[in-house]
Amino acid sequence: MSRELPLDLPLERLDRYMGARDSYSEARAVLFGIPMDFTTSYRPGTRFGPGRIREASYGLEEFSYHQEASLEEVAFCDLGDVAVVFGDPRTTLDRALQVARRVVADGKLPFVLGGEHLVTLPVVQALLERYPDLVLLQFDAHADLREEYLGNPLSHACVMRRCLEAGVRPGHLFQFGIRSGTREEYDFGRRHCRLYPHEVLGPLRKVLSELEGRPVYVTVDIDVMDPAYAPGTGTPEPGGVSSREMLAAIHAMRGLNVVGFDVVEVAPNLDPSDRTVVLGALLIREALLAFAR
Amino acid sequence: MSRELPLDLPLERLDRYMGARDSYSEARAVLFGIPMDFTTSYRPGTRFGPGRIREASYGLEEFSYHQEASLEEVAFCDLGDVAVVFGDPRTTLDRALQVARRVVADGKLPFVLGGEHLVTLPVVQALLERYPDLVLLQFDAHADLREEYLGNPLSHACVMRRCLEAGVRPGHLFQFGIRSGTREEYDFGRRHCRLYPHEVLGPLRKVLSELEGRPVYVTVDIDVMDPAYAPGTGTPEPGGVSSREMLAAIHAMRGLNVVGFDVVEVAPNLDPSDRTVVLGALLIREALLAFAR
Amino acid sequence: MSRELPLDLPLERLDRYMGARDSYSEARAVLFGIPMDFTTSYRPGTRFGPGRIREASYGLEEFSYHQEASLEEVAFCDLGDVAVVFGDPRTTLDRALQVARRVVADGKLPFVLGGEHLVTLPVVQALLERYPDLVLLQFDAHADLREEYLGNPLSHACVMRRCLEAGVRPGHLFQFGIRSGTREEYDFGRRHCRLYPHEVLGPLRKVLSELEGRPVYVTVDIDVMDPAYAPGTGTPEPGGVSSREMLAAIHAMRGLNVVGFDVVEVAPNLDPSDRTVVLGALLIREALLAFAR
Amino acid sequence: MSRELPLDLPLERLDRYMGARDSYSEARAVLFGIPMDFTTSYRPGTRFGPGRIREASYGLEEFSYHQEASLEEVAFCDLGDVAVVFGDPRTTLDRALQVARRVVADGKLPFVLGGEHLVTLPVVQALLERYPDLVLLQFDAHADLREEYLGNPLSHACVMRRCLEAGVRPGHLFQFGIRSGTREEYDFGRRHCRLYPHEVLGPLRKVLSELEGRPVYVTVDIDVMDPAYAPGTGTPEPGGVSSREMLAAIHAMRGLNVVGFDVVEVAPNLDPSDRTVVLGALLIREALLAFAR
Amino acid sequence: MSRELPLDLPLERLDRYMGARDSYSEARAVLFGIPMDFTTSYRPGTRFGPGRIREASYGLEEFSYHQEASLEEVAFCDLGDVAVVFGDPRTTLDRALQVARRVVADGKLPFVLGGEHLVTLPVVQALLERYPDLVLLQFDAHADLREEYLGNPLSHACVMRRCLEAGVRPGHLFQFGIRSGTREEYDFGRRHCRLYPHEVLGPLRKVLSELEGRPVYVTVDIDVMDPAYAPGTGTPEPGGVSSREMLAAIHAMRGLNVVGFDVVEVAPNLDPSDRTVVLGALLIREALLAFAR
Amino acid sequence: MSRELPLDLPLERLDRYMGARDSYSEARAVLFGIPMDFTTSYRPGTRFGPGRIREASYGLEEFSYHQEASLEEVAFCDLGDVAVVFGDPRTTLDRALQVARRVVADGKLPFVLGGEHLVTLPVVQALLERYPDLVLLQFDAHADLREEYLGNPLSHACVMRRCLEAGVRPGHLFQFGIRSGTREEYDFGRRHCRLYPHEVLGPLRKVLSELEGRPVYVTVDIDVMDPAYAPGTGTPEPGGVSSREMLAAIHAMRGLNVVGFDVVEVAPNLDPSDRTVVLGALLIREALLAFAR
Repeated sequence: MSRELPLDLPLERLDRYMGARDSYSEARAVLFGIPMDFTTSYRPGTRFGPGRIREASYGLEEFSYHQEASLEEVAFCDLGDVAVVFGDPRTTLDRALQVARRVVADGKLPFVLGGEHLVTLPVVQALLERYPDLVLLQFDAHADLREEYLGNPLSHACVMRRCLEAGVRPGHLFQFGIRSGTREEYDFGRRHCRLYPHEVLGPLRKVLSELEGRPVYVTVDIDVMDPAYAPGTGTPEPGGVSSREMLAAIHAMRGLNVVGFDVVEVAPNLDPSDRTVVLGALLIREALLAFAR
Repeated sequence: MSRELPLDLPLERLDRYMGARDSYSEARAVLFGIPMDFTTSYRPGTRFGPGRIREASYGLEEFSYHQEASLEEVAFCDLGDVAVVFGDPRTTLDRALQVARRVVADGKLPFVLGGEHLVTLPVVQALLERYPDLVLLQFDAHADLREEYLGNPLSHACVMRRCLEAGVRPGHLFQFGIRSGTREEYDFGRRHCRLYPHEVLGPLRKVLSELEGRPVYVTVDIDVMDPAYAPGTGTPEPGGVSSREMLAAIHAMRGLNVVGFDVVEVAPNLDPSDRTVVLGALLIREALLAFAR
Repeated sequence: MSRELPLDLPLERLDRYMGARDSYSEARAVLFGIPMDFTTSYRPGTRFGPGRIREASYGLEEFSYHQEASLEEVAFCDLGDVAVVFGDPRTTLDRALQVARRVVADGKLPFVLGGEHLVTLPVVQALLERYPDLVLLQFDAHADLREEYLGNPLSHACVMRRCLEAGVRPGHLFQFGIRSGTREEYDFGRRHCRLYPHEVLGPLRKVLSELEGRPVYVTVDIDVMDPAYAPGTGTPEPGGVSSREMLAAIHAMRGLNVVGFDVVEVAPNLDPSDRTVVLGALLIREALLAFAR
Repeated sequence: MSRELPLDLPLERLDRYMGARDSYSEARAVLFGIPMDFTTSYRPGTRFGPGRIREASYGLEEFSYHQEASLEEVAFCDLGDVAVVFGDPRTTLDRALQVARRVVADGKLPFVLGGEHLVTLPVVQALLERYPDLVLLQFDAHADLREEYLGNPLSHACVMRRCLEAGVRPGHLFQFGIRSGTREEYDFGRRHCRLYPHEVLGPLRKVLSELEGRPVYVTVDIDVMDPAYAPGTGTPEPGGVSSREMLAAIHAMRGLNVVGFDVVEVAPNLDPSDRTVVLGALLIREALLAFAR
Repeated sequence: MSRELPLDLPLERLDRYMGARDSYSEARAVLFGIPMDFTTSYRPGTRFGPGRIREASYGLEEFSYHQEASLEEVAFCDLGDVAVVFGDPRTTLDRALQVARRVVADGKLPFVLGGEHLVTLPVVQALLERYPDLVLLQFDAHADLREEYLGNPLSHACVMRRCLEAGVRPGHLFQFGIRSGTREEYDFGRRHCRLYPHEVLGPLRKVLSELEGRPVYVTVDIDVMDPAYAPGTGTPEPGGVSSREMLAAIHAMRGLNVVGFDVVEVAPNLDPSDRTVVLGALLIREALLAFAR
Repeated sequence: MSRELPLDLPLERLDRYMGARDSYSEARAVLFGIPMDFTTSYRPGTRFGPGRIREASYGLEEFSYHQEASLEEVAFCDLGDVAVVFGDPRTTLDRALQVARRVVADGKLPFVLGGEHLVTLPVVQALLERYPDLVLLQFDAHADLREEYLGNPLSHACVMRRCLEAGVRPGHLFQFGIRSGTREEYDFGRRHCRLYPHEVLGPLRKVLSELEGRPVYVTVDIDVMDPAYAPGTGTPEPGGVSSREMLAAIHAMRGLNVVGFDVVEVAPNLDPSDRTVVLGALLIREALLAFAR
């Protein structure tokens, strides 16, 4: 836990993920939040995600029984949040791009706390500049492959389509757990993506060998979970995976060359039990231990 | 999505399930709600079920990844709700019977949104008039086979007993997932019904062949689900099925001659995450695609 | 209450404000919602305002003990909602303008259900085309007079500034109940507006005589209320007026030439008791009776 | 506070209002609950009223700063709740009548915890048998004078009409704070009752002198309060009284011959802050001190 | 259901678990609550556990479909709650010890409703006086083996360490489902306890034979469940067991010599759906049937 | 608003009250939180007060329409929170005393965010060392003058008694708004304190002249407000003051020599509308402007 001691007094400020102690220059993994939910279609609230995930992280331990390892073994820092402009997705994403670019340029791993899924776009853009053959592993209930949503191309329902346009190559987008979309998205996914509907752990294990050594970005839309496990999200879709399965998926990717990670679409206001933010915090801890040690 | 355009203006009214576009005469499946919760014993609120399920339906897609089919292939309409009389179950059920009778008489499939489980009774009564050998498939945590509940025979805890009295023949009631009841209900179920406690998908698959071609009514009491998946219900009973299993159960019945369907006991006020109404809306979409295409 | 009877059956659909029965052509007052909350700065949710206000209206009576009059004496209709584009305030406001223009062109009174306060802008624009000397009576906790908010000029924190730019003349904006803003807004308000901080009923009564006969638009930001009376709003500001005082304010304006009315910034998701939407519904009823009889 | 010590062990059971210590035979005031909400029209939940009011009473002191007196000076007991039959208002009211009759016959004062407003009926019936000239003081937002509600005469919206039919004489029903009803109820109230719309304390003080010495029953529908003060109720009606005013009203009646008292329509499920049940508990304490010392 | 009939009237008081009817002297199993949450580190609220679990028990049946047996076959009573001293864990635990000692001395089985996990300590202390070789079966997400928590040795995060110091012998503490703790706790558990991380049913079945005939105490920290199944707990830890698995675990222990049982860390205020208290009530019913028949 | 720019990037961290920008050495007023609720008797949760009040402060403006002044004119800093030891009030209060002593020794004004009311004790102790004739102005619903509460002298229900023992002189404690307590507290207050039950603004104005020039500490227990205005508190007591009255009380004290200030007993978890924390944040802004400019 973070324990600043201004004036040598018994004071503390619990404002960084798990009390992140490392400086930016020391850090290998760099966390930052993008608290934006301006294009959310059904129920807003993911703007509160980064703050509440940090808060929940203080209820967790730094040591993982899963990986028998401690966050003390990971050099990471927490930069705070991108300053959003309410109602202006374009400017907000530009700012996020600025931050992501700098982190990637400095050879560090971006770990992003959403916000709506659109926040994945600038991070992927920044990474593509360094890794043109970037592989995208998307864990999600929704395909997010629409050309536009109600006339708006810059919507969270289109983010993967925008990532493809930004340079992710054909066949480089792997979709796991997808169970909702239009017929067009389904057909598009079948043709241009590696689509694994409904399932997560099984298909992931099958493709691990072909991913070895390639630069991989992992994006976890929390609604890939069954809403029983993650009710705090804008567009819950029953029939998803369990916490155990998602944790196992993170662990399964341990050997990969993961160059960035995000957890998005956590809407704390929709879950009075706070277990969705706790899960978000836990996924990040496990990802830090798995990908940034 | 429904987009009425009065005056050729960009206006919409989202008041029908999934924007149901077909007229009554065109429709093969006819939805209506019975927003009644007057005999609920523990926690009321299912009166809000039909309205909130419709609302939640706008967060879903018309295309199903499960069945690779779209609601555009189904002719269905949504009649709105039976006008209930608060505190008067008998009159309310009479009105529901009037509506159900007409729908059945016109050769259409009733798709009912509850409301407490008692609303199944008038629909079954209407169907028995046409199909005297109707088979009832009940997915439920509770047996609902009491002779009376605290002296009241017209209680949601007695609805299956009343259905049997209304003419469902011995051995024609199949109960799946039951895990709560009195000793009397247990014994009665063992003797007069096809009782499959706790389990759903396994026993269902075993009986499918003997159901072929027979007229089948499917009633889903949402509390058949584990409360993790459907917390918004009056009398949750831990130890139930998952969303995946229940969806698979709907899909398993695809070949049957289903002549009516309901989802009951959804109490939105008990689930601030709204995932219970989302699940209700999803089960109806899958049922429309499976039984009414 | 609205009682449609398709097929002569005891069915109903409760989807119009107070069961609005009149057609557009008959109506003197025309209700429509603008369920937009894309520039909300603190806590979103006003997108749910119009739907929930309609719902709550069914818990009210058509007869007002306050005015000893019934809605039966008012010709009004409810058009539903403007079709919003999530994340795109500009297009959404254009659509709202289209609707408002038509309503005003047809000589009817627009009654608007917000949505964030920005939705007042297109309605005022439409009215200015007909009434260049339009007077704006703003009931609000916030001045909403910023030049821009975090770099964004099209924010709900700037709506009154935009209305002035759209043509509301100097001294034609009356602000009641204002108790929050920047020093710049305070100075601007003192110079260019008729600013009555904190108070509502007292100053309103004083200016009534000079408003006589002039075309008046009334906009009620629900946060003019003390949060005790209207907790369901994004940026509550303690120290506001009571329900009794606000109702009295509506009644005090009865003799004025009110040409339009809105209630905005109702965020139902922030008030589990639903009393904010009930208050919204009640203010609209009283306004219909006071201004559109 | 109640501190039973079975086995001389440090145990307690907090299940009686304020730890009521007196036996039935010693008691002058007799509390009991009628946890029924079967005819509630808008939002149910008053069935949880009696239990939660008792619970909240343990957060209060026995000593009143208002009256400078302590509950130790009042002999009262708490009988628990009438055993309701879910979905059967008639049988439930019969049982309540049985209890009320016995309490009245034994010369004790009934203090009733609702439940919906219909529970006032059996208590008034029992009292009329002893006091044919009973005066009814109703504090309420709604007139409750309908002939029937949606065809049902036994509805909480009709309870005062039923009380009049049960024998309360013309002019013996005083209504304070009423601000909602149909035109028919308004006219009926004007003709047959002493109707004081909106106001409570002012008119009450005016009629006190003519009430002196007469047997008076006081029924407080919690929705007489503005919803700011009592959000936990099924049909909130903005524009009501404050807690201070209602407390002052109780104190103003101190000299009257109050022969019975109830607090009804408290729906704890609609108020996560629990201040409505706290207010209910406080009104009962003040009423015990004012009327039963 | 419990139906006291004071005065031969239709009254009831629902204040004992499942309407416990037996007297203390008749009872084999003795329930009592310890509503204490004073050392809770993250989110308090378990003080409300015992009361709400009792309340929820009235929504269950006395007959178990799982065990085909009824509570009528078990002699049990419910003593109410230990009188806690807010803010003083030491005195409160002393009082709990007094009660537990008496129950154990009288040859009865203590069934305890927490409260925070610290309440297990006095019960174990009382049992150790009678069974020095007591075996502790802990179902929990957290190891609770800290030497101290933030300098406080008497914290719920240290309770198992304190139990070991109180006399539970090396190797006599079996931990199931543990998935969170410090590295020190992990190492300590590996060395001094029978640690089975993550899993419950599998390892339990493996050790059953070596437990035969030995005196066993079963403590269920509700957070052993995945938060999907039990969100109402202070420190939820995703990745836990399902309701079905936990019920099966209770059933698996049926043949053991269980001398005491508790369910702790249920915080009803964190679960608006109430399914956590329902699960708590159900686990107790199944435990009574499995261990106290 | 606080806008740190690490790395010259558009980042921000919103973790200090109103973005407090001054350093400790520059500051005249020093904010810190004491997030402790270990002796709370009814409903816990004030531990979340300081964090949520800071969060809510970002929804406010720095400029006050009430005082026509801006926080830019006040030099203040925010130290974060005292590091509490869960379940150990004594150690926690010792730590708070350490912090308060240092702040007072440096000639600065402590502004404290509670936490339960007990946190006032160490601040008063620290101030008494410098101002032996300190005057205490307590705004509160409860007397807090008990000798002990359920045997515990270190309870929030005893804090004013402990302050008197710590050295506040007879007649130096002024109590405003008190409306709950035992008879003993009432008598003690009448004898040894300046007790003004129920009222706030009236009596305050009367005593202002005798307070001139004397060192004054102001403690605001948020439950002095009517629960309508501040539902988020552990022991709400209906009949309190409005937001307007409490704001006016702060403004009335503007000329006094206020040497310290606190807002306590804010329990955010009990108020889903967040208006209690908004009010807390607003009272602190007004107090900073009134007492520390």
